[in-house]
Amino acid sequence: MTTTPSNQLWLYDTTLRDGTQREGLSVSIEDKLRIAHRLDELGIPFIEGGWPGANPKDVQFFWQLQENPLKQAEIVTFCSTRRPHSTAAEEPMLQAILSAGTRWVTIFGKSWDFHVIEGLKTSLEENLAMISDTIAYLRSQGRRVIYDAEHWFDGYKQNPDYALQTIKAAATVGAEWLVLCDTNGGTLPHEITRIVKNVVLATGDWELGTGNTEKTLTQSPLPQIGIHTHNDSEMAVANALAAVMAGAKMVQGTINGYGERCGNANLCSVIPNLQLKLDYSCIGEHQLNQLTETSRFVSEVVNLAPDEHAPYVGRSAFAHKGGIHVSAVERNPFTYEHIQPEQVGNRRRIVISEQSGLSNVIAKARSLGMELDKNDPQARQILQRMKELESEGYQFEAAEASFALLMYEALGLREQFFEVKGFQVHCDLVEVKETTNSLATVKVGVNGINILEAAEGNGPVAALDDALRKALVNFYPQVADFELTDYKVRILNGNTGTAAKTRALVESGNGQQRWTTVGVSTNILEASYQAVVEGLEYGLLLNFQAEKALKV
Amino acid sequence: MTTTPSNQLWLYDTTLRDGTQREGLSVSIEDKLRIAHRLDELGIPFIEGGWPGANPKDVQFFWQLQENPLKQAEIVTFCSTRRPHSTAAEEPMLQAILSAGTRWVTIFGKSWDFHVIEGLKTSLEENLAMISDTIAYLRSQGRRVIYDAEHWFDGYKQNPDYALQTIKAAATVGAEWLVLCDTNGGTLPHEITRIVKNVVLATGDWELGTGNTEKTLTQSPLPQIGIHTHNDSEMAVANALAAVMAGAKMVQGTINGYGERCGNANLCSVIPNLQLKLDYSCIGEHQLNQLTETSRFVSEVVNLAPDEHAPYVGRSAFAHKGGIHVSAVERNPFTYEHIQPEQVGNRRRIVISEQSGLSNVIAKARSLGMELDKNDPQARQILQRMKELESEGYQFEAAEASFALLMYEALGLREQFFEVKGFQVHCDLVEVKETTNSLATVKVGVNGINILEAAEGNGPVAALDDALRKALVNFYPQVADFELTDYKVRILNGNTGTAAKTRALVESGNGQQRWTTVGVSTNILEASYQAVVEGLEYGLLLNFQAEKALKV
Repeated sequence: MTTTPSNQLWLYDTTLRDGTQREGLSVSIEDKLRIAHRLDELGIPFIEGGWPGANPKDVQFFWQLQENPLKQAEIVTFCSTRRPHSTAAEEPMLQAILSAGTRWVTIFGKSWDFHVIEGLKTSLEENLAMISDTIAYLRSQGRRVIYDAEHWFDGYKQNPDYALQTIKAAATVGAEWLVLCDTNGGTLPHEITRIVKNVVLATGDWELGTGNTEKTLTQSPLPQIGIHTHNDSEMAVANALAAVMAGAKMVQGTINGYGERCGNANLCSVIPNLQLKLDYSCIGEHQLNQLTETSRFVSEVVNLAPDEHAPYVGRSAFAHKGGIHVSAVERNPFTYEHIQPEQVGNRRRIVISEQSGLSNVIAKARSLGMELDKNDPQARQILQRMKELESEGYQFEAAEASFALLMYEALGLREQFFEVKGFQVHCDLVEVKETTNSLATVKVGVNGINILEAAEGNGPVAALDDALRKALVNFYPQVADFELTDYKVRILNGNTGTAAKTRALVESGNGQQRWTTVGVSTNILEASYQAVVEGLEYGLLLNFQAEKALKV
Repeated sequence: MTTTPSNQLWLYDTTLRDGTQREGLSVSIEDKLRIAHRLDELGIPFIEGGWPGANPKDVQFFWQLQENPLKQAEIVTFCSTRRPHSTAAEEPMLQAILSAGTRWVTIFGKSWDFHVIEGLKTSLEENLAMISDTIAYLRSQGRRVIYDAEHWFDGYKQNPDYALQTIKAAATVGAEWLVLCDTNGGTLPHEITRIVKNVVLATGDWELGTGNTEKTLTQSPLPQIGIHTHNDSEMAVANALAAVMAGAKMVQGTINGYGERCGNANLCSVIPNLQLKLDYSCIGEHQLNQLTETSRFVSEVVNLAPDEHAPYVGRSAFAHKGGIHVSAVERNPFTYEHIQPEQVGNRRRIVISEQSGLSNVIAKARSLGMELDKNDPQARQILQRMKELESEGYQFEAAEASFALLMYEALGLREQFFEVKGFQVHCDLVEVKETTNSLATVKVGVNGINILEAAEGNGPVAALDDALRKALVNFYPQVADFELTDYKVRILNGNTGTAAKTRALVESGNGQQRWTTVGVSTNILEASYQAVVEGLEYGLLLNFQAEKALKV
């Protein structure tokens, strides 16, 4: 058996359990399976899948996972200690846990005397019995146990002796991990440091009975310490780091920091902080550079907009906007970047925005394969046009394809594939919810020929999009491969209600590439329509450029 | 003169300068003025307004602020040191700063030898001269100076002697604050602690010349240390706290943590952490409870969706969703809350969601003034209906008025003020962008009478809303006071483009109250329409309840 290097840490992901407590987040069984497999690929050793019994979805999830098991990771069930004054063997909750068929089970119990008396309405002794009975029973059924000490830090501050008795009760009967939880998220790092150090010292002196006979995962005769933090004081990641530096060997957290209230420790920040800055070993290097993709994959599956400003993995994490930064980072990235974006699978971006100076426009042009000079009047003209449009509500930061079109236009390189002459949309909802029909007609000019086309759809934008494609596909057969992959609407100046301007962002794809375009109008349909039209145009342009490149 | 209590800290807000570096954020002069006055009310002593000269908007901002000055706060201009091999008096940048007319100026300069050589392309000696010349000149013009030491921590780690020489150069000529900046956001708290302690020790031994003659704000003969952190490692708040505990007396940050890349230290977390948990004094207690409102005000003015999961000030920060938490927090809030939400002007919420158990429904009913019992079949019926609608894409977490209507319906208490029979919308855009017209017709039944109304608008939702009001106002004159205050659209299952379902959230108001309703459909117009209709209905219901209450 190999010995464990001293810098080895164990990650424990609870996106599928604690993460789903986030307000606004809900997942299907299929979603959970996809996420579990992705976390397995990322190299997370422990993945908490849910609480079968408390939630019928979770029972199904564990069963389906048995049919298509994870490659490396341990999938873990989560459950509370038995109820007061019952026996573990008769506890239906624990039967549901056993029938989920996992090797590992996480049991959470009370550490804080106040919670035992006020929350559970039972005695301090009974709480200790609940912890040890539950874990002993699971051990007798061949399960390995992680013990989550709920409200650990609040409890320890009030009554350290009792708090230590609770984890000793767990360890004595064979819990292999004692995870200290900052359940309310109110603890600050200096308190975490002090308390975790105390716990590491105290547990190091324990003489445990025969409960802990099996060799543990960590090769240690004594249970190891873990940390589980919440972000209510914006300290979840800092607290996790403080605990590790004080001796904790397991970090619990979630992808993107999802979790109840303000969330859990964000593994997308915890992992690179520990691995790139503190030289701990969590996941493989080839796995670390999947981090950004994993973050975005999970946000897509749970259908939440990704946090563009998230550390390490956000779209803006290595974006440069201010003129001074842009010129410096062009000279030497190290000047304004704390790590290399590629280490976590992210990339550097030069942002086009209202504050942009010429150097941003030139850097952006370069990323599109065009060399512009500072003294080039066209560079100034692009900047000017961009600022005008931005003052109308356009935003090119997320709509790089629209910006490219603007740039091509200024440079006289914009091909006119087609010209839109106008459109009409008609929606008729009689007896609401029974029939929903939209009809769109468009008039498009291609090569001097005017085409009038109409299409129906279950919404006005779908009808518009369809009518446009019908008009164009006879001239440009590749349009058949284009698809509208995402569509977002944002109301500008929200406080003026429906009279406000609407900004539509449309993401289109052709199977290989994806691009985003923008439209702005007081009319939501016109804004959507502008973005759809530019999406088609940019797709045609990509095709045109690819054909030209082949000919050369 | 009063002495400064040892727990006094000075906050320095840079929302209006560093905050506006956030990708996607842009502000008008009017926006900046509103934010500055609000920060003044919050009790922030230093407010950085911008860099007049670098940005024409900022010149205007400082001029307009002189006409309507702040009550307590010092407004501060921001500028770099003079260019290499020039003189401060001939530097046009500094003339723009002087003409802004502020008492205080923040000058930033280089601390990191690497940046001096690679970025500025000048000598280490010239950089020291740039710092001291610039500050000495501003002092000679009667200005008080804060010195921001850019890239301090990276620089100190590479070459501590040189880094210390740079801030000594600033202090010797009279800078009153030396602010250590973690510009790239890559530093971890234990490094901050060590380095700030070293700086406090080193500066304590300095014997300064006569540059620093004026009594400083802090009554100290020596300059005080400040901290400026960025969130690239998700450590901005933790780092600010670490610096304060190591002796820093000023904290720079922004409201909601806005800032370039991953943002700056979030003052909405920094302030309550320092004041409620570490007993430092930053702002008044009556100001602390304006924190949530200030956070939302600023996000509204800069037109960014508030982060609902933000610590302390987020809408979800004290929201309880899981069944166990809800029943415990109902018994005793202290069990699951790290502070009292009212201390920061926030409030506790019981969340209605897919995971809701009966106890959540009952708690929610109570907050609407209705007593339901767990065994009441109506409670189960509400939960069942809610789950059905949520599986179709409805979401009641943000649409509490729609949830109230659902609940009233289940209890047989939903008044039928009107009935919608159908609607038609027609949009015609000939020669796109020249004429934009939408026409809506609606058919509504009130008290057995069918009304057909039509209205035009510059968008289809505005036209629909207007037609509905015209139909209802003769029966319910209070409809004239209702207004649509916000309108948000979200595409569900974004990956299927325009065929996806659309969820519309509509916020309505009557001058005293605001409420939110939700609609879902594959047709964006129908989804909007559902939410607009429920918004009108809920407004009528509020009015009806108020009248009933008056009669009793």
